Amino acid sequence: MRYKCTCAYDGRNFSGWQKQPTVRTVQGVIEEVLSKLFDSCIVIHGASRTDSGVHALAQVFHFDSDKEIPIGKLSMIVNRHLPDDVRIVNAEFVDDAFHSRFDTSFKTYEYKFSTDASFDVMHSHAIYQYGKEVDLETLSEVANLFIGTHDFKGLMASGSCIENTVRTMFDIKFSKSASTVTMRVSGSGFLYNMVRIMMGVYFDVAEGRKKLADIDSELISGNRNFFNRTAPACGLYLQEVSYEKFYKIIDF
Amino acid sequence: MRYKCTCAYDGRNFSGWQKQPTVRTVQGVIEEVLSKLFDSCIVIHGASRTDSGVHALAQVFHFDSDKEIPIGKLSMIVNRHLPDDVRIVNAEFVDDAFHSRFDTSFKTYEYKFSTDASFDVMHSHAIYQYGKEVDLETLSEVANLFIGTHDFKGLMASGSCIENTVRTMFDIKFSKSASTVTMRVSGSGFLYNMVRIMMGVYFDVAEGRKKLADIDSELISGNRNFFNRTAPACGLYLQEVSYEKFYKIIDF
Repeated sequence: MRYKCTCAYDGRNFSGWQKQPTVRTVQGVIEEVLSKLFDSCIVIHGASRTDSGVHALAQVFHFDSDKEIPIGKLSMIVNRHLPDDVRIVNAEFVDDAFHSRFDTSFKTYEYKFSTDASFDVMHSHAIYQYGKEVDLETLSEVANLFIGTHDFKGLMASGSCIENTVRTMFDIKFSKSASTVTMRVSGSGFLYNMVRIMMGVYFDVAEGRKKLADIDSELISGNRNFFNRTAPACGLYLQEVSYEKFYKIIDF
Repeated sequence: MRYKCTCAYDGRNFSGWQKQPTVRTVQGVIEEVLSKLFDSCIVIHGASRTDSGVHALAQVFHFDSDKEIPIGKLSMIVNRHLPDDVRIVNAEFVDDAFHSRFDTSFKTYEYKFSTDASFDVMHSHAIYQYGKEVDLETLSEVANLFIGTHDFKGLMASGSCIENTVRTMFDIKFSKSASTVTMRVSGSGFLYNMVRIMMGVYFDVAEGRKKLADIDSELISGNRNFFNRTAPACGLYLQEVSYEKFYKIIDF
């Protein structure tokens, strides 16, 4: 049978999602616990391969096993053996045709940064300590250039090789609470480092390094050299992975 | 000349304040940066030897050097070389007679825990995930037993050898914001693990394991076997170290 799980993790002390030899990864840590529990080698398939230092509140993965563990108890049992920076928040049985990565309809990421000039050691791994004020109206104007269906090849980390670089951004919103700004973006999918490169554009505009008109034309031409700033991983959160057929605009 | 510095750190990835060979400590990390900057072996003296996993927003330390670095620039220069989980927040020159540990008039600690049943991976290192509701009025009644001057030998981790175990607790207050409870305690000084053992008493009372009358009598008799619960380090913060001669009751 196929299990679908949703998990949350603090990415600070993980070298990303994807299993690698010798380093601590989310996939590696979860597979180790599941393999002991199911008494066989379990391989999990994540919806998103989050980078080193990136967090998730609702990463989704699936795995197969012939052994049936009561689904209502699975999270509790697994969580007892997981370290404090990762937890299963939901588990369910799904159809064997379900695939955590290929069946997604949209994903939502958030990026958090602080405008406070004083560096906050307690949140430096969870909120990018940007330390400068920004004008949210200006950033929203930049965001409007990204919304819709575009070829985002300019906003992909160099070295990536993906044939189809067209993605649809359904919605991008900024909000501010105390000195923390949150950028929330929902899209059909995201290229490698795309959200962090988007954030780099916002920061460049806030600092007067880039102009709105140039962003528009360089986005169309797909110029990677223009989109050359990648915001730190620590502010990024995978917030939601949806498998609904249609994206609904949600007020947040 | 003698330098007095105030520093903040996230204790999560440190094996406590005090320097030890082979492990990462706050003292070790700061001394390494200062020794390079002053081009000589700098030894720093902290006001409080916080344990592994314990945080500080205002730890104080002093050190001596013949070399004078402009005091207004010291924090900025040092911070550029420190990792993201520790920062100098203030630096000043002090009289050679000043001692960060022996001259303290009072210290303030805070302990944060969550009453929310759901485990928060993003704050599990910063807020103890207690996960159960508590009655703050009951806890305040327990706190009243601790306030004042007492022999706190019962609330000291076993193995400690200190002759004078009498301390004065000036004030203990509980507050709650969303699901996070903060216990704030100011005292003339604290024995090893004393705040965490105090928290253990609160949790035991909240769970009906200990009664008010018993706590009072066991506190007087100094029975360490009775005070046998130590709350996790992750919720504890060194908030303030004061060198004023008189403690003033501050509303917080």
